[in-house]
Amino acid sequence: MYEGAVQDLIDELGRLPGVGPKSAQRIAFHLLASDETDVRRLAHVLIQVKEKVKFCEICGNVAEEPQCRICRDPRRDLSLICVVEEAKDVVAIERTREFRGRYHVLGGAISPIEGIGPDELRIKELLQRLAGGEIMEIILATDPNLEGEATATYLSRLLRPMGLRVTRLASGLPVGGDLEYADEVTLGRAFEGRRSIDD
Amino acid sequence: MYEGAVQDLIDELGRLPGVGPKSAQRIAFHLLASDETDVRRLAHVLIQVKEKVKFCEICGNVAEEPQCRICRDPRRDLSLICVVEEAKDVVAIERTREFRGRYHVLGGAISPIEGIGPDELRIKELLQRLAGGEIMEIILATDPNLEGEATATYLSRLLRPMGLRVTRLASGLPVGGDLEYADEVTLGRAFEGRRSIDD
Repeated sequence: MYEGAVQDLIDELGRLPGVGPKSAQRIAFHLLASDETDVRRLAHVLIQVKEKVKFCEICGNVAEEPQCRICRDPRRDLSLICVVEEAKDVVAIERTREFRGRYHVLGGAISPIEGIGPDELRIKELLQRLAGGEIMEIILATDPNLEGEATATYLSRLLRPMGLRVTRLASGLPVGGDLEYADEVTLGRAFEGRRSIDD
Repeated sequence: MYEGAVQDLIDELGRLPGVGPKSAQRIAFHLLASDETDVRRLAHVLIQVKEKVKFCEICGNVAEEPQCRICRDPRRDLSLICVVEEAKDVVAIERTREFRGRYHVLGGAISPIEGIGPDELRIKELLQRLAGGEIMEIILATDPNLEGEATATYLSRLLRPMGLRVTRLASGLPVGGDLEYADEVTLGRAFEGRRSIDD
């Protein structure tokens, strides 16, 4: 145990995800040895992020204005919505530069174990967006795991009767990976989704 | 890339030791989803730690008063000084309850690669403490690695001519470990430092 403020900082840092007691101690001593301006800047951005960052009223992505950068962008294709679990998935997809539509952030995935059902996700808001009639295709980009698949299945059953095109991101071998290291489910999916090479 | 404040927070978190870009992103989104009071408390302890925490004028340990808790404690044995590299080593040794003297925190170890020589460490301050004449033994508890050993060797050559008892913590097999997993240097040290079992 350290004296007052040092221990308080170690305790607070230890509450962050992925920061164990040893890392919390290392970070605390790093901050003790840092310039006061650096530490004040970190404290400042922490407060800023809570004051400034809101969630986009259209898609639920993080935003500093009522609407996020993507929903405000007039060049985005309004007929396409890509449904993701979290705001960080938006960033991952934006990095590919493959998608020119808009997003819808669910805020998680269906998980009976964690007590998350469809009502806990932003599905009602998605249906409201569809009411406008301009949307032609919904791309389900939830995570390729149990919860993500369950959520995609739930949404496709809900949306398909509405006459929309509902698609799911392809599963298969990761590019640059070794076939022998692929798990059997991924390898199975890669067979299932195989394409002619003159494609 | 995220919008303004979120990206600023990810950048600042990414500067902390042991926090890579992925962890910084995970922590930032955790904080976004946290209660504002929790985030404000973290910001507050960051500022507190820089405002309140000083270094003990005697030993260099962290302290919230001019002298640390240990140097202020009248029950500690004034004839013994344990020399360590960092304040976190003090906490590790205190946990053993084996040592009842006082400490001296060097602020690092001699490392020619990192450009740290004896002048960068609190060695002058150690010599000043010895001038009082009440100190009988110096225990060198620097890390059992290259830099720590070099520092211990340097200090023992400096201090021994002063007529003090200079000791070094024992090296050997870690308690509870498996002999077969010990590296050869540690195993060699364990042989070198072997003791009669009637000890």
